Amino acid sequence: MNNTKRTPIVILNFKTYLESTGINAVNLATASEMVAEETGINMVVAPQSSDIYQLSNKVNIPVFAQHIDAVDAGGHTGSTLIECVKEAGADGSLINHSEQRMKLADIDVAVKKLAQKNMVSVLCTNNIETSAAVATLKPDFVAIEPPELIGSGIPVSKAEPEIVEGTVEVIHKIDPEISVLCGAGISTGDDMKAAMDLGADGVLLASGIIKADDPKEALLNLVSKI
Amino acid sequence: MNNTKRTPIVILNFKTYLESTGINAVNLATASEMVAEETGINMVVAPQSSDIYQLSNKVNIPVFAQHIDAVDAGGHTGSTLIECVKEAGADGSLINHSEQRMKLADIDVAVKKLAQKNMVSVLCTNNIETSAAVATLKPDFVAIEPPELIGSGIPVSKAEPEIVEGTVEVIHKIDPEISVLCGAGISTGDDMKAAMDLGADGVLLASGIIKADDPKEALLNLVSKI
Amino acid sequence: MNNTKRTPIVILNFKTYLESTGINAVNLATASEMVAEETGINMVVAPQSSDIYQLSNKVNIPVFAQHIDAVDAGGHTGSTLIECVKEAGADGSLINHSEQRMKLADIDVAVKKLAQKNMVSVLCTNNIETSAAVATLKPDFVAIEPPELIGSGIPVSKAEPEIVEGTVEVIHKIDPEISVLCGAGISTGDDMKAAMDLGADGVLLASGIIKADDPKEALLNLVSKI
Amino acid sequence: MNNTKRTPIVILNFKTYLESTGINAVNLATASEMVAEETGINMVVAPQSSDIYQLSNKVNIPVFAQHIDAVDAGGHTGSTLIECVKEAGADGSLINHSEQRMKLADIDVAVKKLAQKNMVSVLCTNNIETSAAVATLKPDFVAIEPPELIGSGIPVSKAEPEIVEGTVEVIHKIDPEISVLCGAGISTGDDMKAAMDLGADGVLLASGIIKADDPKEALLNLVSKI
Repeated sequence: MNNTKRTPIVILNFKTYLESTGINAVNLATASEMVAEETGINMVVAPQSSDIYQLSNKVNIPVFAQHIDAVDAGGHTGSTLIECVKEAGADGSLINHSEQRMKLADIDVAVKKLAQKNMVSVLCTNNIETSAAVATLKPDFVAIEPPELIGSGIPVSKAEPEIVEGTVEVIHKIDPEISVLCGAGISTGDDMKAAMDLGADGVLLASGIIKADDPKEALLNLVSKI
Repeated sequence: MNNTKRTPIVILNFKTYLESTGINAVNLATASEMVAEETGINMVVAPQSSDIYQLSNKVNIPVFAQHIDAVDAGGHTGSTLIECVKEAGADGSLINHSEQRMKLADIDVAVKKLAQKNMVSVLCTNNIETSAAVATLKPDFVAIEPPELIGSGIPVSKAEPEIVEGTVEVIHKIDPEISVLCGAGISTGDDMKAAMDLGADGVLLASGIIKADDPKEALLNLVSKI
Repeated sequence: MNNTKRTPIVILNFKTYLESTGINAVNLATASEMVAEETGINMVVAPQSSDIYQLSNKVNIPVFAQHIDAVDAGGHTGSTLIECVKEAGADGSLINHSEQRMKLADIDVAVKKLAQKNMVSVLCTNNIETSAAVATLKPDFVAIEPPELIGSGIPVSKAEPEIVEGTVEVIHKIDPEISVLCGAGISTGDDMKAAMDLGADGVLLASGIIKADDPKEALLNLVSKI
Repeated sequence: MNNTKRTPIVILNFKTYLESTGINAVNLATASEMVAEETGINMVVAPQSSDIYQLSNKVNIPVFAQHIDAVDAGGHTGSTLIECVKEAGADGSLINHSEQRMKLADIDVAVKKLAQKNMVSVLCTNNIETSAAVATLKPDFVAIEPPELIGSGIPVSKAEPEIVEGTVEVIHKIDPEISVLCGAGISTGDDMKAAMDLGADGVLLASGIIKADDPKEALLNLVSKI
């Protein structure tokens, strides 16, 4: 667990791209594992639910789910049960991603469930105000991603540095133990360095790496300046 | 594929019970496989997404997803992409289960996607009217489950036989190629026989088997009268 | 009621534009009423919930809600109860608009509730397949609106005439009593005439009129060729 | 506005009961107005959207909406636009009620929109943790309602006093300007007094009054001990 949360951390959200599905997910996770071994950076992969079992058995880096539902075991056809993703090998989960926003009451339940299962919680937010709000819930990580920059190629760490700094400040004022991640538009070593310089403990990213011609090279470049 | 759709069919929806999660899911699928071999009945298991890969690799019976989202590959964190569940080994999917109701426009997309991928669609409905509506969309199966009987232990085939008969009638009037399943409250051989006598081609069931002391015995009993 | 459903019909969806909110909604409804009086066309306005009471008291043309929820009277804070919109003066309601898509089971409930209350149901759909599906539910009107054309200024009756024709055909094959409306991109007299020539009984439209410099003139132009 | 937020405050959520719809809503609002006049207590009514216009024109007490959507003016058929409910006469709105839970990002938008429009925000929460979370967003009121007690007739102020006390404490630690309301199961003068003694500034209630044989008497009893 301690190792799973080690910073600086790079969390690669596989989303639902074909380039990060099935056998492609295995290859991308393997590339991430190699970068982790070569650089010592804590590399985490967050594949789709159906790929968690396979990936967690094939690579030796943390695997996170992309979402868990705020449901207890029972009659919830089609929901993502934390017990199931954990047994499949997940070490943590993203929650409240901009593409999977949750109701506040459900975010609270999900953070508590992850803590009870000794799994890492990465709570995504869209601005300083909602980051402050969720900091009171004590997730392990808050990942700030201004929605307008997601998938834009414009790094939040450069386009809106005051959002990253402001988020780090309000979160640490509420709970200094929470680590802050910077998402949205991050893809290069400069982007990541800028994020770290602003106080972030790592990055959450997706298409910038997944769609790269050579994802391993892109990951090596990403972590090259920290 | 033909084999996957063969009737009479028994589809066991694993829902999100702990008794049908992870290693328990493997055991339950193995029991289903044994019943299929011993009886020749087409037994299908529908585990949670994270268990699809493992189950499809360990048992030699069809594995269905519990749900797919009406999304194309892309930026849809936390969604269930059909390409992913298919590559994990799913041969079909439930859609519009009463615990995961979908918008009509999304049901239409999901049925089309399953057909395009040569996967079996099992479209759940709640009454005769919605069964007629979805029959026009040409799913492989329509599973009629009056919500008030789900998990009740009261079999729809006995409590409301006119719903099963009426559903079979309106569906076959629209498209005789669609098979009709009977869900909700089914657990014994008598329940299943009553369903088949009313015109159903099989059953969709869950807790009656999953929560049984001996699921394999319960499955053998279920199919004993057909 | 008969009068409320009379065709050709023009239903003006006020959506949530400021140009059709509050006092502006009153003015727009008054313009619609004048056009109804001058031309004899059945003009219907569909304002936001909070404007229904005022409009139904100030104009003498039918007023429809934009949506009703599939809930019974009870503890449903924030929901739109059919009894409330009816008592406020609504004569019918749009349901399943592309900006307010509903679950299939809820569409079925809403159509039945509207019929029970002697209110007109206008069921929006996105393509031929979903139009056929809902025709089995016996709404008064089906309004076909390809989502990609909504608000585009490109009239579906000209850009995709085969969708309008195909929808009319499949709906009337299932139930000849259902009237078909054409939505999406309609704004001129030519657009509406093209829709009627393809078999539509009227149009459902919004921004083309609401955003016009002179909405009354725009409405007069709209109905000038039928 | 100051007057609208004056405490002690009683907010009566009309929900979607027939006893508080249409003409019944007018009568209930009139009873509330009489109690306000007789006792000097700040009585607020929160009717359904379609009843706001009529009520705000007939009674001289604050009228709140039950919900607003986090949308800007535009193409959002069926949504509840803040500009519309304000022009209809609403002075504030409940948001995130347990029967209308919102995504965190949308709660943030709704609170900001209400402040911009000089309207009162009453943000409902389910426990101490989510109350602390939303306190950072600076709503005017936080209304704590443990979901299991809503409509139960068991007053939270007696059944779970530590939740009320704990909520008051965490909220005032974050922002002492926020007023705390106590909801769920409140119906008598004793219940309300117990709530006030625990630090609440008022109550949010519904069925206990709406379903009473004589709502005015029930309201007079409610405020009799403060």
